[in-house]
Amino acid sequence: MATDRTNSADEVLIALAPGPGALRHRLEQAILEGVASGRLPPGTALPPSRALADTLGISRWVVTETYGHLVSKGILDARTGSATRVAPLVADGGGADAGTRRARRTDAARRTDAARPSEVAQPAGGALERAPHRATHDLAPGVPDLRHVPREAWLRAARDALAAATNDDLGGQPAAGHPAAREAVATHLRRARMTSGPDRAVVLTRGASDGMSRIAAALAAAGHTHLLVEDPSWAPLRDVAAAAGLLPVPVPVDDDGISTDRLRSEAARTGARAVLLTPAHQFPLGAALSDPRRAAVLDWAREVDGLVIEDDYDAEFRYDRRPVPALQGLDPDRVLLLGATSKTLAPAFGIGWMVVPERWRAAVLEVSVRRGPTPGPATLDQLTLARFVADGAFARHLRAARDRYARRRAALLAALDSELPGARVGGIAAGMHVTVDLAGLALPGLALPGLDQSGPIWPDAAAVVREGAARDVALVDLRRYQAAPSARSTVLVVGYGNLADARLAEAVRSLRAAVEAAVG
Amino acid sequence: MATDRTNSADEVLIALAPGPGALRHRLEQAILEGVASGRLPPGTALPPSRALADTLGISRWVVTETYGHLVSKGILDARTGSATRVAPLVADGGGADAGTRRARRTDAARRTDAARPSEVAQPAGGALERAPHRATHDLAPGVPDLRHVPREAWLRAARDALAAATNDDLGGQPAAGHPAAREAVATHLRRARMTSGPDRAVVLTRGASDGMSRIAAALAAAGHTHLLVEDPSWAPLRDVAAAAGLLPVPVPVDDDGISTDRLRSEAARTGARAVLLTPAHQFPLGAALSDPRRAAVLDWAREVDGLVIEDDYDAEFRYDRRPVPALQGLDPDRVLLLGATSKTLAPAFGIGWMVVPERWRAAVLEVSVRRGPTPGPATLDQLTLARFVADGAFARHLRAARDRYARRRAALLAALDSELPGARVGGIAAGMHVTVDLAGLALPGLALPGLDQSGPIWPDAAAVVREGAARDVALVDLRRYQAAPSARSTVLVVGYGNLADARLAEAVRSLRAAVEAAVG
Repeated sequence: MATDRTNSADEVLIALAPGPGALRHRLEQAILEGVASGRLPPGTALPPSRALADTLGISRWVVTETYGHLVSKGILDARTGSATRVAPLVADGGGADAGTRRARRTDAARRTDAARPSEVAQPAGGALERAPHRATHDLAPGVPDLRHVPREAWLRAARDALAAATNDDLGGQPAAGHPAAREAVATHLRRARMTSGPDRAVVLTRGASDGMSRIAAALAAAGHTHLLVEDPSWAPLRDVAAAAGLLPVPVPVDDDGISTDRLRSEAARTGARAVLLTPAHQFPLGAALSDPRRAAVLDWAREVDGLVIEDDYDAEFRYDRRPVPALQGLDPDRVLLLGATSKTLAPAFGIGWMVVPERWRAAVLEVSVRRGPTPGPATLDQLTLARFVADGAFARHLRAARDRYARRRAALLAALDSELPGARVGGIAAGMHVTVDLAGLALPGLALPGLDQSGPIWPDAAAVVREGAARDVALVDLRRYQAAPSARSTVLVVGYGNLADARLAEAVRSLRAAVEAAVG
Repeated sequence: MATDRTNSADEVLIALAPGPGALRHRLEQAILEGVASGRLPPGTALPPSRALADTLGISRWVVTETYGHLVSKGILDARTGSATRVAPLVADGGGADAGTRRARRTDAARRTDAARPSEVAQPAGGALERAPHRATHDLAPGVPDLRHVPREAWLRAARDALAAATNDDLGGQPAAGHPAAREAVATHLRRARMTSGPDRAVVLTRGASDGMSRIAAALAAAGHTHLLVEDPSWAPLRDVAAAAGLLPVPVPVDDDGISTDRLRSEAARTGARAVLLTPAHQFPLGAALSDPRRAAVLDWAREVDGLVIEDDYDAEFRYDRRPVPALQGLDPDRVLLLGATSKTLAPAFGIGWMVVPERWRAAVLEVSVRRGPTPGPATLDQLTLARFVADGAFARHLRAARDRYARRRAALLAALDSELPGARVGGIAAGMHVTVDLAGLALPGLALPGLDQSGPIWPDAAAVVREGAARDVALVDLRRYQAAPSARSTVLVVGYGNLADARLAEAVRSLRAAVEAAVG
């Protein structure tokens, strides 16, 4: 596009922010400061990642990770075949008014599937204050069904918890959380996830990222410098670890989960003694870590006196057999489990937990209280969760949600088979998303754009994402989760957690239209 | 006492933890590790602060601050005339059970004044998990009236907020907070505290410490190394700033608030360009910052391109005239206001705010999201607060609480006058605590222990605190808040926020008994 040359990428000066901290964050800060100061106005093209990496003398991954993170926050825009650019400005004055009007209306009819109004203009530097835009057809992974949040059951639990709380319960509470809430969560996890260890191993958090932030800071304080991560993987937890000073080291995954051979070699190369895993359901590819690899990971952790961080993000939703037990249950001394309610209830509940090995407990709590005497969720919310779990409301909600997602998954697979014949759908055994590989696609009447030596050229996932956005369909390219994004990808990560059942067929037809447009 | 020599302080080896970080925290970590590992078993006497400071080549203030902080957490025990020691062990197994039983009982009769069972044994290193012990007579400052938490009104607001929330409200929200909650808090603060600036200046936090932690990290990232603080002052906010890498620099206060002459000279000496103040009601001495000094602080901040952090902790409770307006309203570009509900509602609500100057907004939000995508309070709690404020429930609660505290204050002053005649009571115009200076005390029939050249020797506050503890009366010595605690102090800081009205007279009689025992 001609407009790509409006701002020459070569003219954009980006210097690393001075001082300590991970390279990723120094670079991010430099870009944010440029945007906030107006030095990098909206539409400015940033240098290609390779060029910037060369200029700054840093790894290209640092640059692509930083760009990707800022794209995910809406500060930068990325389009395939075009430069990464500073995103258009939006302002939150109108947004605040709109939000207030929303909060003041009690009309239950507002709980509809209508998309939220898109962002409105706010000053530069304010992009972190923007509410995420939810597309009409939300096929992005990571969001549960916001139409079926158990509002009434939660409110009942809140009422009972408030009635039962002693006066002292309402005063200061320990940094690890209220004992009743820790016990309730520990009981739930032992039953639902086969964890082991005492109630006191549970520390209440604001969510999985909060837990990751604390253990990462504790690891860094203990001298750790690297964190092995799955490649591909969910970026926010990596980002939080990087912000705490741990350099992420990507390790490839396959159909049995993370490659334990590569884990060992990367650990040996970098000195890393901690790894972040999604053993029950690899994000985003969907594999369960095989039993031999589970054993191999734990053997490695014991050998190097290391730590395995288990991101147990959606293990409650498994459709074809019983949930895969938490790795933590196999070695509570070596595995720290991170859990949250953001994917089982909703992000708005703001409560999660970690199950911390005894040897890390003091360090995690010490890091926690450095952020203030009450680093965790509000005590009232902890007591509400305790009640919600103890009364069986959580288990009932999980069962209902599992049934709902299972039915939706079946409908999605049928629709994909019908609308995108030949595409390979993976990772279907659990969770709230699948992968859709467009290689092999056989759309009747659709000519593929070309052939090279290796065969047909399939639609590029980034082009499909772009065409989807034009149709208000939120889609994600697998490359968003890769450490070093591949030049081409034909794989989409398709979430169905927050997809309206009544509009599922329409959503998949829109996806097909986006694929067709990307090919044409 | 003979037992003071059981463990010789000279034998205790404490080395600074290696690595970066504030000295205070490296020392704290070293002690915590010693306790957690069992190397410093319960009862171990730590070296005198001066000796340890010499050994480690660090300032004595660092040592006394560290000891004081660990005493406040219950990890160390301090007794006047005896060494600082590792506190006895307690375990949380029983505590968890007790907590669960509490949470499962709905008996409203449990909301009594009965003290919570004291801590039970838990393993070393677990002291951070302990619930604070509330004495029968709670005369410690900083806790509001837990008997009059507006439970029903809050639950109504929660119900209305849940009913009105859109599905998208329950999804991810901006790091700064939900726009409706930010607007509601901004409106409240403009009315109640005379703040100025746009709604977007408000950032929702978990509380004042959370806000302090974020602005301190932003200051440190921008190159700040020191933070001027009032002396005496509330330790937790200083601690959080120190953990973020800002060295606290004490500046004396007098009856007009912080000394602005000394502020200028300490700023010049250290290069500090940020100051933490309690302008409406100096903690703990009670002065309001005078108008000339308000102007002088702001002039200084503008001259050095600095920042004033206003800890607006209990300004809602002012008895003899209208509330002192927030300093923030005089210069929203130079003053960042920290507020919370922990002293107006209760700590269990876990929600606060900061009003951030435009120039610091991007930096504060950037620091925030490094801890995860949702650094603030749960969205549901934000929406509940918005409703609670917008419906007038917050204003009604504040009025009722102010009337209640005003009556209690009058009763307390009368009781002190009767039981401790001659003691000077200060800081009575606002808040939930007063200072009681035992110098001048004229107890009928009580012989003072002695005289020296300068006159009579008055009871030492630390001895009174110790004798109070033996009678289950929680008292605080002014020295807890001093940067370099004086050798002797006759001043107690007496809170009445969480003092039961029906037992006020009994509490003051117990205080008198503690004073008499300290003298005798």
